[in-house]
Amino acid sequence: MSDIPKSISIQEEGPREGFQIEPGPISTADKVRFIEALAGSGLHHIQCVSFVDPKRVPGMADSEEVAKQIKRRDGVQYTGLWLNLRGFERAVKTSLDIAGSMQMSASETFSVKNTGKNREQTLHEQRRLLDFYRINNVKVETAIVMTAFGCNFEGAVDPGTVRDCVATILDLAGEFGITLKRMRLADTVGWANPNSIARVVGTLRERWPDLPLTLHLHDTRGAAMANALMGLQMGVDSFDSSCAGLGGCPFAGHKAAAGNICTEDLVYMCEEMGIKTGVNLDALIECARMAESIVGHPLPGKIMHAGSLSRFRPSVT
Amino acid sequence: MSDIPKSISIQEEGPREGFQIEPGPISTADKVRFIEALAGSGLHHIQCVSFVDPKRVPGMADSEEVAKQIKRRDGVQYTGLWLNLRGFERAVKTSLDIAGSMQMSASETFSVKNTGKNREQTLHEQRRLLDFYRINNVKVETAIVMTAFGCNFEGAVDPGTVRDCVATILDLAGEFGITLKRMRLADTVGWANPNSIARVVGTLRERWPDLPLTLHLHDTRGAAMANALMGLQMGVDSFDSSCAGLGGCPFAGHKAAAGNICTEDLVYMCEEMGIKTGVNLDALIECARMAESIVGHPLPGKIMHAGSLSRFRPSVT
Repeated sequence: MSDIPKSISIQEEGPREGFQIEPGPISTADKVRFIEALAGSGLHHIQCVSFVDPKRVPGMADSEEVAKQIKRRDGVQYTGLWLNLRGFERAVKTSLDIAGSMQMSASETFSVKNTGKNREQTLHEQRRLLDFYRINNVKVETAIVMTAFGCNFEGAVDPGTVRDCVATILDLAGEFGITLKRMRLADTVGWANPNSIARVVGTLRERWPDLPLTLHLHDTRGAAMANALMGLQMGVDSFDSSCAGLGGCPFAGHKAAAGNICTEDLVYMCEEMGIKTGVNLDALIECARMAESIVGHPLPGKIMHAGSLSRFRPSVT
Repeated sequence: MSDIPKSISIQEEGPREGFQIEPGPISTADKVRFIEALAGSGLHHIQCVSFVDPKRVPGMADSEEVAKQIKRRDGVQYTGLWLNLRGFERAVKTSLDIAGSMQMSASETFSVKNTGKNREQTLHEQRRLLDFYRINNVKVETAIVMTAFGCNFEGAVDPGTVRDCVATILDLAGEFGITLKRMRLADTVGWANPNSIARVVGTLRERWPDLPLTLHLHDTRGAAMANALMGLQMGVDSFDSSCAGLGGCPFAGHKAAAGNICTEDLVYMCEEMGIKTGVNLDALIECARMAESIVGHPLPGKIMHAGSLSRFRPSVT
């Protein structure tokens, strides 16, 4: 356990991955208020909106307006998600922080079902995007491997398959003169368990000891926090998470796709373990309560209901 | 991580700890149906009812009737909880499996607030009960240390305090010629984190290497599964848990918001890690769905909503 990091960084996904699947409607003002509160809690990276087809995801039709209204804080990255050139062209016109990312699914069947593209077609699309990023001077620093631990169509994913995906991504990045700063591993449909986290992270570490890894965990089957703990024990120092446990994947092959690991529960566990997050937990808990009030139904986060331990401890003066 | 056990045993707490806090009313027939389904899933120890004051806990007024109606399966222990002699006298008249237990709280303040007794008074009461068990030929094989990881009144609990509690319990047991087979450590109000689990379990292991430990975890702040993982890594092979996460409530206004760690989520994680539980996960998930239907509101378990992975895997023929 000596690999446990002293601090972690968190990318907050709630406003995008969370609000995207809500039946809504969620007002632009509520989205902006929530994003600003999240930034106020000390989170440094907030994925705010997605630029997807408003006909398919009507709840994200106001993404430009949300981006426009956010009162920005220094030192905070406000990002958006896009899945194709059309989305990128919308995003780049906003004041959001624009960075390209590469992506591939470890499960080709998932890729076909989710994006309509097999591996070869995905690579072709990635090249098109990378060309476009180069022309538009868009930096590309990260990539994501989806279904890195398993998928409903292909079952458990072999760590070697993930390694091959990462190798393909790094090769492609190399073609474009890009040095990736970070590789995200997504448990897109909730197949990960602590052992598979250890195996996949270990396999990648062995091949690329210096490649920083991020875990993007979903709490589909209740193991997300245990998976995060195993990630920490393996030295992972970066996590995607979602305030109040907002969210879920609408294209995951089953209806009850659970949200991301809950940001404030993760922050709580890390801080209790002496791992710094840079986040004010009580302020973040207030954000989670705000999220619950905005969506109008219970959300899965735990500590938002119980409260933090700070009120039971003598204050340090 | 070489201490990870090959198999674990589970004490199911749902019918007692779960139904006890439900506003109800829950019919006797529903309780019996649920208990029988749990036993059918392969669970070998089910705490069915509590013998507490029906004026304080009206939902448990039918405990005798529940005990009477259960169609018992061979090899399953059906137990009840009592907190004092009056409760014991009710329990012993039923057909439940009767076993005494010793208990102490690591936090004396919690003890006073919860039971009205300080440490000395608790020991006095324990002696009275042990006398009574001896006269009535009731076996005593386990003890529980409550608030073993922290408490809202005294804050974090020092592992040395837990060690002293265990020593006191073992001394008292010795006075009565009792050799305890198991010590339960309860995170009664949800203060545990993976580090404190490791510290407390490690401290007890160092002093009593052969004393089997059980973790009784609550998911008050979302860390229960991570705490269980750390317990497994420390070699703990026994857990109390609650089907569907009963005992918890997802509604923010509910004070007792946090249930035990969810049995089927724990079973899922363990089986995925190759740790045998003896439980049929899909049958247990059906129990969890039954529980949700009985209580009539969402329960916190995760895999009951997503379903197991079995339907995505080729069946072994």
